[in-house]
Amino acid sequence: MSQSTSAAATAAETCSSPDPSDMQTPQPTAVDIRRVHADPDNWYPVAWSHELARGKTIGTRYAGQPIALVRPMEGSVFALEDRCAHRQVPLSLGTVEGEAVQCCYHGWAYGRSGRCIDVPYLGKGKLPNGVRTYPCREAAGLIFIFPGAPEKAESVPFPTLGSVEDPAYKTRRFGRQVACHYSFMHENLMDMNHQFMHMKQMGKMKPRFLGGKDEPRLVEARYTFARTSGKQPWGEAIIFGEKRDNSERYAHRDVMTIRTEYPYQTLRIASEGEPPVMDLWIVYVPQDKDELTCRVFGLLSIRRPKLRFALDMAWPFLIAFTERIFREDRDIVELEQAAWNAQGGDRNQEVFPVINSLRRLLLRCGIQPDQPKTDAAA
Amino acid sequence: MSQSTSAAATAAETCSSPDPSDMQTPQPTAVDIRRVHADPDNWYPVAWSHELARGKTIGTRYAGQPIALVRPMEGSVFALEDRCAHRQVPLSLGTVEGEAVQCCYHGWAYGRSGRCIDVPYLGKGKLPNGVRTYPCREAAGLIFIFPGAPEKAESVPFPTLGSVEDPAYKTRRFGRQVACHYSFMHENLMDMNHQFMHMKQMGKMKPRFLGGKDEPRLVEARYTFARTSGKQPWGEAIIFGEKRDNSERYAHRDVMTIRTEYPYQTLRIASEGEPPVMDLWIVYVPQDKDELTCRVFGLLSIRRPKLRFALDMAWPFLIAFTERIFREDRDIVELEQAAWNAQGGDRNQEVFPVINSLRRLLLRCGIQPDQPKTDAAA
Amino acid sequence: MSQSTSAAATAAETCSSPDPSDMQTPQPTAVDIRRVHADPDNWYPVAWSHELARGKTIGTRYAGQPIALVRPMEGSVFALEDRCAHRQVPLSLGTVEGEAVQCCYHGWAYGRSGRCIDVPYLGKGKLPNGVRTYPCREAAGLIFIFPGAPEKAESVPFPTLGSVEDPAYKTRRFGRQVACHYSFMHENLMDMNHQFMHMKQMGKMKPRFLGGKDEPRLVEARYTFARTSGKQPWGEAIIFGEKRDNSERYAHRDVMTIRTEYPYQTLRIASEGEPPVMDLWIVYVPQDKDELTCRVFGLLSIRRPKLRFALDMAWPFLIAFTERIFREDRDIVELEQAAWNAQGGDRNQEVFPVINSLRRLLLRCGIQPDQPKTDAAA
Repeated sequence: MSQSTSAAATAAETCSSPDPSDMQTPQPTAVDIRRVHADPDNWYPVAWSHELARGKTIGTRYAGQPIALVRPMEGSVFALEDRCAHRQVPLSLGTVEGEAVQCCYHGWAYGRSGRCIDVPYLGKGKLPNGVRTYPCREAAGLIFIFPGAPEKAESVPFPTLGSVEDPAYKTRRFGRQVACHYSFMHENLMDMNHQFMHMKQMGKMKPRFLGGKDEPRLVEARYTFARTSGKQPWGEAIIFGEKRDNSERYAHRDVMTIRTEYPYQTLRIASEGEPPVMDLWIVYVPQDKDELTCRVFGLLSIRRPKLRFALDMAWPFLIAFTERIFREDRDIVELEQAAWNAQGGDRNQEVFPVINSLRRLLLRCGIQPDQPKTDAAA
Repeated sequence: MSQSTSAAATAAETCSSPDPSDMQTPQPTAVDIRRVHADPDNWYPVAWSHELARGKTIGTRYAGQPIALVRPMEGSVFALEDRCAHRQVPLSLGTVEGEAVQCCYHGWAYGRSGRCIDVPYLGKGKLPNGVRTYPCREAAGLIFIFPGAPEKAESVPFPTLGSVEDPAYKTRRFGRQVACHYSFMHENLMDMNHQFMHMKQMGKMKPRFLGGKDEPRLVEARYTFARTSGKQPWGEAIIFGEKRDNSERYAHRDVMTIRTEYPYQTLRIASEGEPPVMDLWIVYVPQDKDELTCRVFGLLSIRRPKLRFALDMAWPFLIAFTERIFREDRDIVELEQAAWNAQGGDRNQEVFPVINSLRRLLLRCGIQPDQPKTDAAA
Repeated sequence: MSQSTSAAATAAETCSSPDPSDMQTPQPTAVDIRRVHADPDNWYPVAWSHELARGKTIGTRYAGQPIALVRPMEGSVFALEDRCAHRQVPLSLGTVEGEAVQCCYHGWAYGRSGRCIDVPYLGKGKLPNGVRTYPCREAAGLIFIFPGAPEKAESVPFPTLGSVEDPAYKTRRFGRQVACHYSFMHENLMDMNHQFMHMKQMGKMKPRFLGGKDEPRLVEARYTFARTSGKQPWGEAIIFGEKRDNSERYAHRDVMTIRTEYPYQTLRIASEGEPPVMDLWIVYVPQDKDELTCRVFGLLSIRRPKLRFALDMAWPFLIAFTERIFREDRDIVELEQAAWNAQGGDRNQEVFPVINSLRRLLLRCGIQPDQPKTDAAA
C-alpha cells in the first residue's frame, strides 16, 4: 500500500497537475481536522527528566488529564492520575514517602499501582479506592507515558529518538507550550514553502519539492533549496559545518527529508551518501481536553564536525538562531488557531498535495470527534 | 412624515404630559435595543489616516470582521478581508509589493480586487480563490469602508464631516475603544440631563429642553443651560471664546443641538443667528461580532476667535478638559453595558420622550436580531 | 431527633465500623452539594462597619445580587438593590443626600424604602418605580442584610456572634474572597484530619475524634490533639496563654468543638470546666450567582490572660500565624473547587462520617438546584 511519489521537479511543476478539485476549493472532508484528537494509544513525553528530582513529584498533563509523576528515592518514575481519590486535589502537591506519594490535604497515600495504601485516620481493612495509573518509561532525558488503554502499552512500539544517543551528534532539547492544535505544527514543518516567512532569518530560500511518500502511518516530503538573495545565517553555517555563498555549487545540494510517522515528526538534512548533518525528532503533545494547545518536545541533533570542540563553542549561536526560527513558527500557528476559533472551524484552502496527504494521515490515525477513545478513563 | 416637537419649556414641563405607559414601565419593545446591529450599508471609519503609512498595511475591524487596510506606494488605500485565503492568517502581517499585499506565511499575493494573483510555488493558471474586498474611501484624515452590500456603496451618501474642512475651525480628532453597544453612546450624548454627572467638571448646569425632531432617519434634541452653582471651567471658556459668570445674562443664551442622523451623531452649540462655536461629528463603530464594544471616531471642531492664534495656545487645556468629560462618559456607558450583561437584557425604564424616540430610530434603522444582514459575507 | 455520637476513641477506631457503603464509594446523593445554594432566608454579613463612613454609600453583593449600603449622616444603615431603576448603573456610585441616595448619572433619588423620590427633570406626580430594599442590621462591626423573603426577616433569629461582645476576649476581624463554594469551607474546618496539611505551621498534630452531634440544623465534631513531633508555634502559645512542650501532660488536654449551626460555623477550644481560650464565629457569604465564590467574615476571639496587656503585645504574632494557616486553607479549597470545575461535578469519596453528616445538613438546609428560592426578586 506504500506509494512513493517520485518527482525531481519544482513545487510549481509538481503542483501543476494534481486533481483540480484539490486545488480550487477547500477540501471537502467530512471531519474538521482541528477537532481530531491525537490517538492516546501511543507513547507521549510529558516532562523532561531534569524537571523531576529524586524523592519528588511534579504535575503534568495529557489532553486535559492531570498526571502526577513520582520519582522515589529508589526505583523508576511512575505516573498517577493527579487527583486524590478523596477530594480530588493534586497529588503532585504531596510528599514522596518511600515508593508512595502522600496527599497534602488529609494524608491519604498511594503506591506505584495507584492503590490507596493508607488513610492515617482509618482502619487498614477499609481502605478506599485508589487512582488511575499510567504506563511510564524514561528515555533520552524524557519521561513518557502511555495515556491510552494500558494493556496495549507493551505492544505499541516505543519511538526511536533520532540521533540523540549517537555520540557523533550533539543534541539540543527544546520545547514550549504552543496555543494550537498539534496538526498545525505538523503542517507547518512539512510545508517548506513557508521558508518565505523566515526570510529575515534565512535569506530568500527557493525550495524545490522532490516528491515524497504516502503510507498508512507515514507521510514524507523531500526538498532541496537554493538561496537566491540574502546571506547565509551563522546558525545554518554551524549546522552545515561550513560557510556558504549563494553560488550554484551549493544550490540544491542537500536534501531535507521531513516525515510524519504518526504521531511523531522528524526532519533530516543530508548530502547524498552522507549521514545527516541535522536530525530532528519532535512531538506535539495535546495539553487541554479539546487538544487546542500542545506542548512541544524536540530533540535537535547536530552532527559534530571533525573539530568536535568547535560545535560546543558555536552552540549559543545555534540556540539563538533556532529560537528566532521557532518563535516565528509559534507566532504563525497560534494565529492560524486564532483564525480557526474566530471562524468556528477549518476554512483552509490547501493546494499543496503533500499537505493534503498529511491531513489525511492525521485524520485516519487520530480519533475522530464522535469516535470513542480506547482510553479507559476518558 | 417629519414632525417637529416645538416646545420652549423646561424638561420637567415637557415631560409632564407624555403617555403614562411610557413613564411607569419599561418600554415594551419586542426587540432588545442592545441586540440590534448597526446597519452595515453605511460608510464607517475604521482607522485614522495617520495610522497607515505609504507602502504599509494595518489590521482593523468592523463588527467582528477583520479588515486589512493597504496603502500602496502609489494610489489610494484599499481594504481586504484580513485573512489569507490559504490558511486564514492576517494579511495585514504581510508586505506590500506594488499594488498587492503578500501573505507573510507562504507568500500568496492579493491585488486591489482581492483576487489571488500569485502563489510562489504554483502554476499561474491554477490560482485559487481570493479574499473579500470592501469599498474604501479616505476623507478628513479618516479611512472609511462600506461593510455592507458592495453594490450599494455608490448610492449611499458619504457623510458630511462637520466643520472639519472649514478653515474657520480648529479640529481635535479623538476616539477610543469603549466596551458598550453603540446605542448607549447615542443615548448618553442626546440626554443632556446627564450634565448632572459632569458636575465636578462643569458646575451645576440646569438644562432646559426646547424640543426636537423625530424623522425617519433623524432624531434631534435642543437644549439651553444655566449654571446655578460652581464656576465656568477653562475648557468651556475656550469653546465660547469668553469668560462667563453665573449671571442671568448668560443663562439659556446658547442653543445646543444634538442630532442622530443615522448612523452618525452631531452636537452643535450656537447663539441665535451666529455660526456654531462648537461643531462635533462622531460615530461609534461596532468592533466585535455581537457589537457590544465600539470604537469612537470623533471630530471636535472649535470656531477660531478673532485672535486665531489664541485657540492654538489654549488647545492643551481644551484637550485636558474634554478628556475628563469623555472619561466620565466612557465609565458610565461601560457600567450600563455591564449591568445589561449581568441582567441578560435591557431593563431600562426610560422616561424622557426624546430618548424613546432615539431608541425607536436606532431600532428601525438597525438590523434586528433575526433579520438577515445584507452584508454579503456575514 | 437530636443524636449525640458519644465516642472517646481515635478517629481510626471511630471509623472502623460505619456503613461500608459509606466508605468505599462516592456518596450516592441525588444532588451535587456544590450546586446547592445557601438559604437566603437568613441574616448574612455583607460588609464591615468600618468600610462605610457616615454620609457615604458602598457597593457589595450577595449571590450575584448587587447591593448598595447607605449610611446617612443621621440614622441607621439601609440596603438597596445596587441598580438605578432608570438605567441600572450602580447607586453606590451616587451621593447621599439626607436620607436618600442620588444616582450619579441623571440624578434620580431613592429613599430608605427604595421608592424613587425625585427625578430632577420630571414632575413629582409622575415618579417611576423604585428599587428593591433589603432588611438591614448592624452588629459587632458587621453590616448584615436579609436577602430572602423580607417578611421572614423579623422571625428568623439573628446570630449570636461568638464572644465578640465579651470584654474578657480580644477579637480579630478577618476575611477575604475565596474562590470556592461555601460548602468546601465548612468541610475544611470541620475535618480536623486536615491538620496534616498545616504540619509546617503546627508540627505533627495527631487528632482524636471524640464524637459529635447531628441535629436538624446543626452538626458538631469534638477533637483533642497531641503533638507528636515539631515545636509548638508562637501563635498557638498565644492562644493557650502558655508555652507547651510535646509531653504527655499536654496531649489531648483541650477539647476543640467545631459546629455548623446553619448557615454559620463556630470553633471553640476549651479545657474541661474552663471558658474557651479561643472562640471563632465565621460565615461564608456567596458572592456570584452560582455561589462558587464566597466572602469570609470571621470573628476570632482570644481570651485575655491575667496580664491583659500581654495579648495586645503578642497580637501581631497571632495575626501572622493565623494568616499563614488561613492561606493554606484558602489554597486547598480553591484547588478543590478547581477540580470540581474541571471534572464538571462532585467526585468526592468521603469516608469520615461527621463530614457526611455535615454534607447532609448543608443539603437539607440549602436550596437545591431545581427548588425555587423564596427570595422575592430572584
